[in-house]
Amino acid sequence: MSPVFDRVALIGLGLIASSIALAARRSGVAREIVGHARTGASREEARVLGFCDSVADSAAEAAAGADLVILCVPVGAMEAVAREIGPVLKPGAVVSDVGSVKRAVIAAVAPHLPPGVGFVPGHPLAGTERSGPSSGFATLFDNRWCILVPGLAPPQDVARVAAFWRALGANVDEMDADHHDLVLAVVSHTPHLIAYTMVGVADHLEAVSDSEVIKYSASGFRDFTRIAASDPTMWRDVFLTNRDATLDILGRFTEELFALQRAIRMGDGAFLHDYFTRTRAIRRSIIEAGQDTAAPDFGRAAAPQVA
Amino acid sequence: MSPVFDRVALIGLGLIASSIALAARRSGVAREIVGHARTGASREEARVLGFCDSVADSAAEAAAGADLVILCVPVGAMEAVAREIGPVLKPGAVVSDVGSVKRAVIAAVAPHLPPGVGFVPGHPLAGTERSGPSSGFATLFDNRWCILVPGLAPPQDVARVAAFWRALGANVDEMDADHHDLVLAVVSHTPHLIAYTMVGVADHLEAVSDSEVIKYSASGFRDFTRIAASDPTMWRDVFLTNRDATLDILGRFTEELFALQRAIRMGDGAFLHDYFTRTRAIRRSIIEAGQDTAAPDFGRAAAPQVA
Repeated sequence: MSPVFDRVALIGLGLIASSIALAARRSGVAREIVGHARTGASREEARVLGFCDSVADSAAEAAAGADLVILCVPVGAMEAVAREIGPVLKPGAVVSDVGSVKRAVIAAVAPHLPPGVGFVPGHPLAGTERSGPSSGFATLFDNRWCILVPGLAPPQDVARVAAFWRALGANVDEMDADHHDLVLAVVSHTPHLIAYTMVGVADHLEAVSDSEVIKYSASGFRDFTRIAASDPTMWRDVFLTNRDATLDILGRFTEELFALQRAIRMGDGAFLHDYFTRTRAIRRSIIEAGQDTAAPDFGRAAAPQVA
Repeated sequence: MSPVFDRVALIGLGLIASSIALAARRSGVAREIVGHARTGASREEARVLGFCDSVADSAAEAAAGADLVILCVPVGAMEAVAREIGPVLKPGAVVSDVGSVKRAVIAAVAPHLPPGVGFVPGHPLAGTERSGPSSGFATLFDNRWCILVPGLAPPQDVARVAAFWRALGANVDEMDADHHDLVLAVVSHTPHLIAYTMVGVADHLEAVSDSEVIKYSASGFRDFTRIAASDPTMWRDVFLTNRDATLDILGRFTEELFALQRAIRMGDGAFLHDYFTRTRAIRRSIIEAGQDTAAPDFGRAAAPQVA
C-alpha cells in the first residue's frame, strides 16, 4: 500500500511498539519508523533486532519531524514524554497513544501539545503476558479491536490514524474517553484485579501449601494466574488512573458476590442454578461472535494480555 | 495389561464416565464395562456410541455383580444412587465416585453401603465445559491428577482404585476429605464463583451493552466467561455441598479485595505494585511445574473445566 504516514515515531519500545513496527513494515503503511526507549539497554536491543529504521537517543529526537508520534509508554509516564516532545512537534503532526485508560492520558498529554497538532488517543486491545522489545510480532493486532477517541483532532486526523490501525490488521471503533474507561473497567481492569486477588488469597492460605495450589491449578485457578502474571507497573498505573470506573465496577461486583454468598449460606439452590444458567448465554455469544472457539484446549498456553 | 477389575459399572454416563470407559478400553484395565444413565435418551446415545460393553436400564442392574462401581452423577444425586445399589452390591465389591466434593459425598453414600464393600471416594481433576455421553475422550485423564480419600476401605482396595486411575493415564494422590474440600475451594470452587459473579456484573450493567462486552471480551473477561460456562446443576451442587470451605475462602477473598480496593482509592501505588509482583511468582511456578506453558495462545479455545 502507499504510506498513510511518512515518518512514524514510536516512543517506548515494548511489546506494543515493536509489534506496531513489525506490522507497519508488513503493510507498508509508513515510509519510515523511528523508535526511542528510555533505557539504553532497550535501545540497544531494538537496534540489534532492527524492527525500526532507526533508534533515537531521546524522545524529542525521535518525535522531531515525525508525521505520527505514538506514545507507547506506561500511562504514568505519558505526561513526561508529552512535555518533552511538545516543543519539537511539527505543525500538522498527529499524536496518538496506546494507553489502557483514556481520560487520564488525555489529561496528561493534551495540555502539552502545541496548536496545529492533532491528538487521537488510541487503545489497541491486544497483548500477551510478555514484554520488552523482543516480544513483538507482526500479527499481534490482526482481527483485534483498536479503540480511538475522536474530538481532539480534526476528523481527517482521526481517519488517518484509523487507516493506520486497519493497515496493521486491527478493526477500529470510536468511543468517548469516559465510556472507554468504563467498558475497559468491565472487560479488563476489574477482571485483572480479581484475578490478582484470588492468586493472593491462595498465596496467603497457610492450610493449603503453594505446591498444592500449583499442582492442582488446572482446576480453574490457572486461568487466574495467567491473567495475574502481567506487568506490575502497567497494572499499577491502570488502577491508579482508571480509579473511578474500577471502583464503580468493584462495588457492583461485591454486591453480586454477596448475593451469591448469601445463597450458598442459605442453601438457595434455585438462585444459584438460575444465576449460573444466565451466564452461559454470554459465553455462547462470545463463541458465536468469533472471539473464542468451543474446542477444548488441552495444552493450555499463555493468555493474550490486554489492559 | 491384565485387568485390575473384572466388571466395572459406571453410574451416570456424562463426560467423565464416557471418558473413563474410553480410557479403560484403551488400557485394558477392565474386562467388562457396564453403564447406566438416568434418562432413556442418554442410555440410547451411549448404546449408539458403544463405549460400554452394555448399558443397563437401572443403576441396580448395572451394579449387580460389579467388582468396581463408580458413581459419576452430580453430587446431589449420589445419595439416591447409593440407596438403590447398596442392596445388590456383591461382597468384596469396591465403590468409588468422581464427585467434586468429598465430605458431603461420603456422608451421602457411606451409610448405604453394606459391610464387606469398600468405599474409595475419588475426584479426577479433569474435564471440559462440555457434557453428555458424546463429550468423552480417551485422553481426558492423561497427566491429570486424581485424588483418592483413603480410610473407608481396606488399603488393598485403595491400591486397586489407584492402579485403575493410573491405567487411565492419571497421577494419583491421597488426601483426607476435609483437606480435599479446602484445596478445591481454593483452586476451583471459589475461582468459579468469582467468574460467575464477574460475568453477572457485566450482564447487569446497563451503561455497557452486552454486545460491547462480547466484542471486547478478549481483554481478560473471556477467561471468566469460559470458567463460568460449565454445567449449572453440577456447580449448584458443588457450592451447596462444599459450603463451609467455600464461605471460608470467600471471606478471605473479600478481605484481600477490600485491601486492594482501598489502595486504589487511596492512590497507594506501592501497595499495588508489591501485590502484583508477588502474584507473578506463583504463575512462574505453575509454568515450571508443567501445568501450563509460557507460549502465547492466539486462537484461544475452551478451558479444561474441573470442579
